[in-house]
Amino acid sequence: VDHSARAIAVFDSGVGGLTVLAALCAELPHEQFVYLGDTARLPYGTKSDESVVRYALQAAAALVEREVKALVVACNTASAAALPALRQRYPQLPVIGVVEPGADAAVAASRSGCIAVIGTEATVRGGAYQRAIGQRRPDARVNAVACQLFVALAEEGWTSGAVARSTAQRYLAPLFSPDAPSAMAADTLVLGCTHFPTLQAVIREVVGEHVTIVDSAITTARAARALLAARELLRPKEAAGAAGHASPLSFLATDGAARFASIGTRFLGRRISADEVELIDL
Amino acid sequence: VDHSARAIAVFDSGVGGLTVLAALCAELPHEQFVYLGDTARLPYGTKSDESVVRYALQAAAALVEREVKALVVACNTASAAALPALRQRYPQLPVIGVVEPGADAAVAASRSGCIAVIGTEATVRGGAYQRAIGQRRPDARVNAVACQLFVALAEEGWTSGAVARSTAQRYLAPLFSPDAPSAMAADTLVLGCTHFPTLQAVIREVVGEHVTIVDSAITTARAARALLAARELLRPKEAAGAAGHASPLSFLATDGAARFASIGTRFLGRRISADEVELIDL
Repeated sequence: VDHSARAIAVFDSGVGGLTVLAALCAELPHEQFVYLGDTARLPYGTKSDESVVRYALQAAAALVEREVKALVVACNTASAAALPALRQRYPQLPVIGVVEPGADAAVAASRSGCIAVIGTEATVRGGAYQRAIGQRRPDARVNAVACQLFVALAEEGWTSGAVARSTAQRYLAPLFSPDAPSAMAADTLVLGCTHFPTLQAVIREVVGEHVTIVDSAITTARAARALLAARELLRPKEAAGAAGHASPLSFLATDGAARFASIGTRFLGRRISADEVELIDL
Repeated sequence: VDHSARAIAVFDSGVGGLTVLAALCAELPHEQFVYLGDTARLPYGTKSDESVVRYALQAAAALVEREVKALVVACNTASAAALPALRQRYPQLPVIGVVEPGADAAVAASRSGCIAVIGTEATVRGGAYQRAIGQRRPDARVNAVACQLFVALAEEGWTSGAVARSTAQRYLAPLFSPDAPSAMAADTLVLGCTHFPTLQAVIREVVGEHVTIVDSAITTARAARALLAARELLRPKEAAGAAGHASPLSFLATDGAARFASIGTRFLGRRISADEVELIDL
């Protein structure tokens, strides 16, 4: 059976994963996507691993019911906690997380082997980036720091100005201090949370021009394309045309369609109206 | 049947309500308390009213099963959304929210009738403070502003310093501008979220000395005492002694005992160990 005409599922705890969806749309312009934000239970970043695994399995079940051809776990916390459980439950389904592509890109970018990772509390505590980078480069030194306030800033839309700048300063200056011995100074920074690309400009101001910033949304989109190609699941260009006027994007959320639409618009970079958002129960 | 020896239930979406529990302990030193933080589903402040009502009813059911004599809804969002539903479901149980006591105190404090309320998105959007103040003083002018970032600052423990100051400045300066006509300048500020008392010092810096800050934790504790006294449910002093070595506080949470303990310690003002926190499902 040829599943290439099916949609790609993208799952996140809320709206942050829309930065990953935007990168996927750019990388795979002929595909259809169904995005599920578990807004009723966000944020995952402060929840226990057991809860996150349970939520991710419930979300995947709802998406698999809609006959998707692949699942992108756009949420760093869920990628870190739930990828093995998802792959075990759905052995036939290509499942792509954001941690492995981010680790690949970080290891490729770093010369010194000293890599900083910023994410939510749960992502940092779970250590998935630390392990993934260590597997790829055993002598790497990884400094992972939880930056919870960046999440709130991104959702509030305060991505520039005094508050964003002083927050970035407080979290990041210790990691990139010019006083640190050069062997200890990170030359690569992984944005290990889907919310953080919206703050990239103030983050860049603090870390300086010489640091490579890895946006795992972009690297994940490339990994998704590679995996779909390997499994012969890329949608032929002609099929995209044949789909006619069907929208390439559909949105599911577990709570608050209006908030999803208003904040999501900022993360996706294109307008979402509340009517487009279907509420579902998990 | 005399229920006065029973414990008082305190319910919140997470750890913020521990500021209310601290005020209750100070006001009612002979009572026992069981505190439930719905940490698996926090924050309520960005959820829809329907979800918040459903969560509050589930939490109340778990607490009523433990044979409590009263329920304090420490969460502003849940007080605003769910109080009527709770009182309807449990008509015999005294249910105390934080909104009504806060509105009482604000109306008592304000000379100009111009009152500012800060809270979560859901509290502000729901308009419960605006209605409660309007009922008590129909000519009051209420200016309500959602300050989501204060929640994240309180949980991160960044309650002083540059980030807290610039955040307070950005949210509050427009409400208390010295350029505003004096009749329009708020003379009273209601802290309509349990997290906000931890930020009181920086809030005071921005609003100035002449503004009365209403901490609804304290006013709620007084309202709870009054209601228990009216229903003859205050625990006699002797009973407190007779309970012997039983701890006057027990803690329930729906997720993350370790995080509850570490952040909760800051909100309660006394150490909570993770062993003290019992995990329950709702």
